[in-house]
Amino acid sequence: MKKVVGLIGSLRKESINRVVFNEYRELSKAHFEMVEGEIKNIPLYNEDLDSKCEPVSDLAQIINESDGVIFFSPEYNYSIPGVLKNALDWLSRDPSKPFDNKIAAIIGATPGGIGTARMQYHLRQVGVFLNINFLNKPEVMIGGANDKIKGGCITDQATKEFLMKHIKVFSETLK
Amino acid sequence: MKKVVGLIGSLRKESINRVVFNEYRELSKAHFEMVEGEIKNIPLYNEDLDSKCEPVSDLAQIINESDGVIFFSPEYNYSIPGVLKNALDWLSRDPSKPFDNKIAAIIGATPGGIGTARMQYHLRQVGVFLNINFLNKPEVMIGGANDKIKGGCITDQATKEFLMKHIKVFSETLK
Amino acid sequence: MKKVVGLIGSLRKESINRVVFNEYRELSKAHFEMVEGEIKNIPLYNEDLDSKCEPVSDLAQIINESDGVIFFSPEYNYSIPGVLKNALDWLSRDPSKPFDNKIAAIIGATPGGIGTARMQYHLRQVGVFLNINFLNKPEVMIGGANDKIKGGCITDQATKEFLMKHIKVFSETLK
Amino acid sequence: MKKVVGLIGSLRKESINRVVFNEYRELSKAHFEMVEGEIKNIPLYNEDLDSKCEPVSDLAQIINESDGVIFFSPEYNYSIPGVLKNALDWLSRDPSKPFDNKIAAIIGATPGGIGTARMQYHLRQVGVFLNINFLNKPEVMIGGANDKIKGGCITDQATKEFLMKHIKVFSETLK
Repeated sequence: MKKVVGLIGSLRKESINRVVFNEYRELSKAHFEMVEGEIKNIPLYNEDLDSKCEPVSDLAQIINESDGVIFFSPEYNYSIPGVLKNALDWLSRDPSKPFDNKIAAIIGATPGGIGTARMQYHLRQVGVFLNINFLNKPEVMIGGANDKIKGGCITDQATKEFLMKHIKVFSETLK
Repeated sequence: MKKVVGLIGSLRKESINRVVFNEYRELSKAHFEMVEGEIKNIPLYNEDLDSKCEPVSDLAQIINESDGVIFFSPEYNYSIPGVLKNALDWLSRDPSKPFDNKIAAIIGATPGGIGTARMQYHLRQVGVFLNINFLNKPEVMIGGANDKIKGGCITDQATKEFLMKHIKVFSETLK
Repeated sequence: MKKVVGLIGSLRKESINRVVFNEYRELSKAHFEMVEGEIKNIPLYNEDLDSKCEPVSDLAQIINESDGVIFFSPEYNYSIPGVLKNALDWLSRDPSKPFDNKIAAIIGATPGGIGTARMQYHLRQVGVFLNINFLNKPEVMIGGANDKIKGGCITDQATKEFLMKHIKVFSETLK
Repeated sequence: MKKVVGLIGSLRKESINRVVFNEYRELSKAHFEMVEGEIKNIPLYNEDLDSKCEPVSDLAQIINESDGVIFFSPEYNYSIPGVLKNALDWLSRDPSKPFDNKIAAIIGATPGGIGTARMQYHLRQVGVFLNINFLNKPEVMIGGANDKIKGGCITDQATKEFLMKHIKVFSETLK
């Protein structure tokens, strides 16, 4: 069975993007196995430090062993969350090049507004450098998430169906 | 005398962008006073933590007391360094809104290539949200910096003159 | 009384962005006078042609005589409409530099979706080159416009009130 | 033999990007056949006009019959040339969806500066909507082209070798 790593761009426990990750993992069980790639123990990137810091090489290994990566991330200040970008900055220095030629997708949810569109195009540009093969479509931008995600679950049926559609396309791409 | 805060996007000690900051501070002495706003002690952003973490409120205060901000930053993976973006993510939550309506500019240097152009346009987009008034011109993108910066100094005279030109424009804008 | 030029990014007669322009012009009458800067007679840009093509120099003059510019534009294929960009490409070659240091804002409406966000950040990047001083806020992205614009009018009261808010801020900026 | 369509973003006869196209076509002859997709007779896009305008459907057909597309384009005002974007706006409305799932690459040359980087990332964003599969690497940004292209030829050997490298990668991707 194919393995997919989920990278969650928020460290907050009750993060709505974490909820989306959890639901997506459940919904995709028949298609692939999802594991979380943890970024919370990765220190601030500093080129002077040993680039083989353990949480980074552990995460690099998980990604290397996977068939694909999905980012579940909020948008912070019209771009990629610093904590997620910081993890990517470390991973880009890992000699194993975990993202090279990796199939990937981006999913984002915001309480109001436009569902992380601005973050997603910045992340796609990062992907050009890292040589990530991002799925073009379907793009998943869950705006107004406060009405769709409640009590740690996605309560909106249309959102769930859209995620199922995404799962099928992503699953096809992994083959 | 006007005060300007320099934010340095790399934590590396020998960072070429730190060298540019140091030289810029020297060159601008007759026009304004520059201080560094330190980002190295700011933890990974997590909304669950107290948003009044001390290194953040200290930095917010320095920026609030300043007349302008200049970013000296490398480009990491075709975008803003995670460590710099992380500091901005914290600062954006500070109730004092340190960047609101602040005059600012971006300066970047890269060993080879195109001098942080990709980072700069991402940072400008962040500035729309934070309501930063970024100088349009002159844009400072120092490519091929390994030939222009040596032994902790800018050795290229044309680069120094260009920085002087920037200092004059920035100084005029602060009035 | 201050003069503001509206540039409409769609050539379609029933364009919803033209409707927004018309309503904005009505709503702003007490604050400034709006005129349309027509782009429909501007030919495809070709550096070999005389750069003083008449529809271009006419438009350049209108912009030069104005105090500000507002773009009312759809998003085509996740970016600036070619017809609008083509007009900007011509205008950027006009020796009078009509956009240099000009105060400007962007307003966009889309039938569904996210209200031209992608177009707007591309246009802001163009503005860095043309030295346009774009208002940071309020950003006007009218999504779901088919429910808010009917029979050539804005029927949604909240949208009208938001435009009034924009008019006040833009008007203040012109002073 | 595979067929590749070249789209040239400048209408100028002596365009340096046209020179690059010509040289690229020569250099790639052993790998694939290149034809130009002409954009110069495509009118300004207007949704009110018949979307089956002849130069558009001709171009759509050429692209549909091809195995891949390469854009050879300048950067105008920090983005995609209006004339090229205008052609894309028409093509996106063609019922045959000529770009859907098409393999493509971007090549750009500028007299000075940074080789069309800003244009290229905007075009990549357009490609997300059109479902273009852009090659991540090698990116071809030919800065300082006035020293590398003379008398209608690429005179710089390193540039030619880099194009040969691109041809090999693109050719592999077409398989």
